Amino acid sequence: MIEKVELEKARRLIEKRGCAPGAEKVALPEAHGRVLAEDIAAPVDCPPFNRSPLDGYALQAGDTAGASPSAPARLEVIDTVYAGGYSHKKVTGGIAVRLMTGSPIPEGADCVIRQEDTRLEEGRVVIEKELFPWENYCFRGENLRKGDTVLKKDSVLQAAAIGVLAGVGVAAVPVYKKPAAAVLSTGDELIEPGVLPAPGQIYGSNLYTIACRLKECGINVLSTGILRDDRAAIGGAVAEAAGRADFIITTGGVSAGEKDLMAAVMKELGAEIVFRGVKIRPGSAVLFSVLGGKPVISLSGNPLASAVTFELLLPPFLQKITGNRSLERRTMQAVLQNDFDKKSPVRRALRGKFWRDREGRAVVEIIDHMQSSGNLTVALKSNCYIDVEKGSTGLKRGEMVRIIV
Amino acid sequence: MIEKVELEKARRLIEKRGCAPGAEKVALPEAHGRVLAEDIAAPVDCPPFNRSPLDGYALQAGDTAGASPSAPARLEVIDTVYAGGYSHKKVTGGIAVRLMTGSPIPEGADCVIRQEDTRLEEGRVVIEKELFPWENYCFRGENLRKGDTVLKKDSVLQAAAIGVLAGVGVAAVPVYKKPAAAVLSTGDELIEPGVLPAPGQIYGSNLYTIACRLKECGINVLSTGILRDDRAAIGGAVAEAAGRADFIITTGGVSAGEKDLMAAVMKELGAEIVFRGVKIRPGSAVLFSVLGGKPVISLSGNPLASAVTFELLLPPFLQKITGNRSLERRTMQAVLQNDFDKKSPVRRALRGKFWRDREGRAVVEIIDHMQSSGNLTVALKSNCYIDVEKGSTGLKRGEMVRIIV
Repeated sequence: MIEKVELEKARRLIEKRGCAPGAEKVALPEAHGRVLAEDIAAPVDCPPFNRSPLDGYALQAGDTAGASPSAPARLEVIDTVYAGGYSHKKVTGGIAVRLMTGSPIPEGADCVIRQEDTRLEEGRVVIEKELFPWENYCFRGENLRKGDTVLKKDSVLQAAAIGVLAGVGVAAVPVYKKPAAAVLSTGDELIEPGVLPAPGQIYGSNLYTIACRLKECGINVLSTGILRDDRAAIGGAVAEAAGRADFIITTGGVSAGEKDLMAAVMKELGAEIVFRGVKIRPGSAVLFSVLGGKPVISLSGNPLASAVTFELLLPPFLQKITGNRSLERRTMQAVLQNDFDKKSPVRRALRGKFWRDREGRAVVEIIDHMQSSGNLTVALKSNCYIDVEKGSTGLKRGEMVRIIV
Repeated sequence: MIEKVELEKARRLIEKRGCAPGAEKVALPEAHGRVLAEDIAAPVDCPPFNRSPLDGYALQAGDTAGASPSAPARLEVIDTVYAGGYSHKKVTGGIAVRLMTGSPIPEGADCVIRQEDTRLEEGRVVIEKELFPWENYCFRGENLRKGDTVLKKDSVLQAAAIGVLAGVGVAAVPVYKKPAAAVLSTGDELIEPGVLPAPGQIYGSNLYTIACRLKECGINVLSTGILRDDRAAIGGAVAEAAGRADFIITTGGVSAGEKDLMAAVMKELGAEIVFRGVKIRPGSAVLFSVLGGKPVISLSGNPLASAVTFELLLPPFLQKITGNRSLERRTMQAVLQNDFDKKSPVRRALRGKFWRDREGRAVVEIIDHMQSSGNLTVALKSNCYIDVEKGSTGLKRGEMVRIIV
């Protein structure tokens, strides 16, 4: 076991113990929001036939050579193609076929004239301009050839991607299986929302925040539960969860005042303790263990601390187990908008609000000056963390700081 | 009926016919991703009692007056408060109570000293420094008072918001009801993905794209279906859908070459035709009608055109019927990265890719130079539309353009 690891090392140690997800084939509508497990090749050419981009007439461009308002070309219209149909007839000199937008262009024709640029006279189409070969002509496979990659492995299937897959005729796709998680909160002080707290009792909100965040990351949350500060009860619940879930997140029982309850439980269960403690505040109280191959990430019982740790520690792990590369947090430089005069012997993550100023520069304001760990609503105003290096003597307005969005 | 309306007017005409959503109360876990229908007040003070922010001892600051390493204060520890409990005892001069982080501070105490700053000697806590009154003391209700607004009406309930509500003891919340939609695609040429197309047939992808986009906007999609180009069949399906859904989106049958099939059907059904045609390309072929109070938005059958119209026309309407204000598209100025030399007598929406350059400036590249309406994969590379005014003689690299993100 390692005591007090750097944030970056903690991230790697947790990520290492995550398993890449397996794949399953699901029907297209169910694939919405999922992550592609393989490259998808077009099953047919797209378009699947030579196609007219507009309403008009298919013909041979040569028939319009020299055509003008004073000397128009006149072609016999031998067929009309309606939506979903096609013409068996071959277009030769002096002949045209009426087409709708998207219709297959008949054999022999090498261009299409727009309906608005023509008129019909006694069954003949009158054309007063010259056309070039292949004008208004979409070639079979010009967008995609059969076998071309439509979407790459690891793409997140939002609406546009689902539409593209449907458009090339794909009815089902391989996506990564959703990992399953169990979330447990420990604490004799915890009660469920909806009842009045007795003195000393508080609402167990971590279960809710963490379960929702996991769902937002594409993870199935199998179960959530509040547990008393009882080794046997916690040990039983963790062992049971490890049998069903791919990983477990617990909150509470990791700070010094709580007698390292989780560490004791995990040792009793024979789990491998990978590390204890991360060099960042808030959220330094973290225990990472592995029980029967299943990662068990034990976070602080303090809601703000557990939220910080979740966002700073888990993205690489969550990315690995879901295959969703967009879960990683973006880091960037931003101009600080206010002072922070607290000295920080340890590295700190301050909640901030990030936006773009009129010139497009990234700017950030510290919104938890008080660092009041009980102030839940701070989380709602914040959209980033400011990474304050250890040994910092404070931050000044105008300084460039590193933020994690 | 109005022919050929401006985009902005079309947006307003559709929005006007949307109904603000009703509310329903749902349990907190089910409220995830939903939109709050009322302000939520804290049901209790937060914290609900005077609370210790750290592990240590509650005492009267006066007892530490003059305390130093050479002349420490020694206080009798008369009680210990464990998680979830509290002390009935009153703290008076010379007395201390041992507390855990988050414990209620007993009556009479006016400060808390951190455990690490003390030592225990023969049942007495030894303190070598002075404390101020209210040092390390969190007051009942200091974060939120009972009745204070925790979250405002119209907030989208992401994980952090669900956690905050749980943390103040809210077990169920009023959220807007999800509107119900039906999506219908018409076209004799349309087939379902998964089968091989005969000549002239194409895959009906609009249903998939639109149903997924509606779900992403928080709308229940009751049904989707492909219909033949048959007035009676379309009329029957639209009338049936209008009886069940709050609104209907159809695709196909709105362009001139398709003989205004949808307009004919809507007239036969006795619907009010509000407008036909929008002054923008692609996506100009739009029919908006209202049948028995239910908006029926009929978009082009062309996948790119219907996608553009959806994104440019519907956000205000979708925002109104869901209560989700974040659905509105953001518009901004960006520096164009390439030329566009096509003259535009009508207003155009070009697909673009927007990003920030090194200085943070918004820049945008046109990615559908060809404007090939069949090229579905363009949709995947695009993250914005470039709004090209009517009468434009083309755009130049370096020009500022208006983009819709």
